[in-house]
Amino acid sequence: MSNRAWVTLATNDSYGLGALVLANSLRRVNSAFPAVVLITPSVTEPMRDRLRAAFAEVVTVDVLDSRDATHLALLQRPELGITFTKIHCWNLTQYEKCVFLDADILVVQNCDELFEREQLSAAPDVGWPDCFNSGVFVFTPSADTFSQLIAFAQERGSFDGGDQGLLNSFFSDWARGDINKHLPFLYNVTSAAFYSYLPALKHYGQNLKIIHFIGAAKPWLQQYNFESSTVEAPEHIRGFLQLWWDIFVSLVHPQLDTAMVEVEETS
Amino acid sequence: MSNRAWVTLATNDSYGLGALVLANSLRRVNSAFPAVVLITPSVTEPMRDRLRAAFAEVVTVDVLDSRDATHLALLQRPELGITFTKIHCWNLTQYEKCVFLDADILVVQNCDELFEREQLSAAPDVGWPDCFNSGVFVFTPSADTFSQLIAFAQERGSFDGGDQGLLNSFFSDWARGDINKHLPFLYNVTSAAFYSYLPALKHYGQNLKIIHFIGAAKPWLQQYNFESSTVEAPEHIRGFLQLWWDIFVSLVHPQLDTAMVEVEETS
Ligand SMILES: O=c1ccn([C@@H]2O[C@H](COP(=O)(O)OP(=O)(O)O)[C@@H](O)[C@H]2O)c(=O)[nH]1
Ligand SMILES: O=c1ccn([C@@H]2O[C@H](COP(=O)(O)OP(=O)(O)O)[C@@H](O)[C@H]2O)c(=O)[nH]1
Ligand SMILES: [Mn+2]
Ligand SMILES: [Mn+2]
Repeated sequence: MSNRAWVTLATNDSYGLGALVLANSLRRVNSAFPAVVLITPSVTEPMRDRLRAAFAEVVTVDVLDSRDATHLALLQRPELGITFTKIHCWNLTQYEKCVFLDADILVVQNCDELFEREQLSAAPDVGWPDCFNSGVFVFTPSADTFSQLIAFAQERGSFDGGDQGLLNSFFSDWARGDINKHLPFLYNVTSAAFYSYLPALKHYGQNLKIIHFIGAAKPWLQQYNFESSTVEAPEHIRGFLQLWWDIFVSLVHPQLDTAMVEVEETS
Repeated sequence: MSNRAWVTLATNDSYGLGALVLANSLRRVNSAFPAVVLITPSVTEPMRDRLRAAFAEVVTVDVLDSRDATHLALLQRPELGITFTKIHCWNLTQYEKCVFLDADILVVQNCDELFEREQLSAAPDVGWPDCFNSGVFVFTPSADTFSQLIAFAQERGSFDGGDQGLLNSFFSDWARGDINKHLPFLYNVTSAAFYSYLPALKHYGQNLKIIHFIGAAKPWLQQYNFESSTVEAPEHIRGFLQLWWDIFVSLVHPQLDTAMVEVEETS
């Protein structure tokens, strides 16, 4: 068994679709490392089947909720409380080093070199760049760290009500500490970067490794034309959304049974 | 004479108004260091008078233009070519260490500690956070560096057509080099941060040092009600815009002669 693994999370079948595309994107770039998906009880049995086929391990965990409605309201994303469930990843102590990837991520180039980094390595968040974005991070599984994170969360909550606020407060030396823990932005290019500073995207974005579809406009919610096999999207981000859908249509969709196709169509 | 100085730039009377407020904001927080403004021939004589009263030095320089219409068009900010003029600041060799501040900046807390940093220290840009934002940077004046920058600009241009692209390419080790050259974001909080990740702003922004009104909506272009002495602006940024206008109305506006008031009103 490998001592390193990619880890993602899906608490429902919609994010399950994202996780399936993510797993296929890792295979497409020939990653040498297995992928693990954390799921919660609400993921349906047909989706679990598909996840078992695409991932080396499917691990069922409890839902952790920050129950912090005030902060979440501030962010206007009340659904994010569930992302607290993410911190269960520290319990994967069968691995020595892991990289967490959100289920709304597409790996477009081989990134196996990420496993050489130390905990906690992550890329800056464009909303407040002295915070890291918690969609991609290198970590060391440890039952101790998990307990500390739970205790910290119970005592201090999370300034944004989600895992990103919690993890940034816990790993608070990220901004001013070791520069090697600052992953290049190319390892977590969030969708906003396709709109706010185009010349930088054109200049630095050629070698993009990981794209992260943050916010409410998830890839699986975009308009896709099955006849022309094209996705409707603004110019600069269209290529990556198309790649997501190409993977979905060729490798994920044919594997879904009728129950699952329904999920996809109503999601 | 101090061997350290704040430096700003105004190539026209509108940015001159910004520079005047900036200088007053530095005085308001009791900075121990003098402020220098670079101007170009197009700044009018009455404005020069006001700048001479507010700044320790007013230095006239040539306009440097990147003449790089393609890249600027991409950024949809053709006026930014003129910001190339900024690099004249390296010629202020009468000082040993300087901090450049854009004219659309307000210093809200004493930041004299910035002079302890080395060239080139700057805060991340929210558009592409592996770039620094060139609205605030610590530098060491040097005729040599100036020549190198000019040669570099002539040979390679600027990926965004402005000074930020040029400076990021020239000081290209910023992202992966010395973490001490990453100024805390609090030293250059750009207006976008007031909209994109509010919980982080509330959590980390209490101790904000410098606010930078980037983009087209400059403070001097906002609607101000002289009767109620209030500025119209979205909630989260209103306090800082109000502070800009309080300084403008109390310390800058009374000093403008009639010719200048006209500039203000048509700008
Ligand atoms: O209802 C949810 C919300 C989130 N997630 C997981 O938590 C991650 C973070 O949430 P999201 O990506 O929606 O946040 P964003 O990146 O848009 O801030 C997702 O990618 C999923 O892995 C999930 O499984 N179910
Ligand atoms: O017509 C101009 C444009 C810019 N500037 C100077 O260059 C800086 C950078 O431009 P700006 O602040 O408009 O760019 P932004 O910060 O919005 O990207 C300004 O603050 C001024 O100091 C100037 O003097 N005249
Ligand atoms: Mn995400
Ligand atoms: Mn500016």
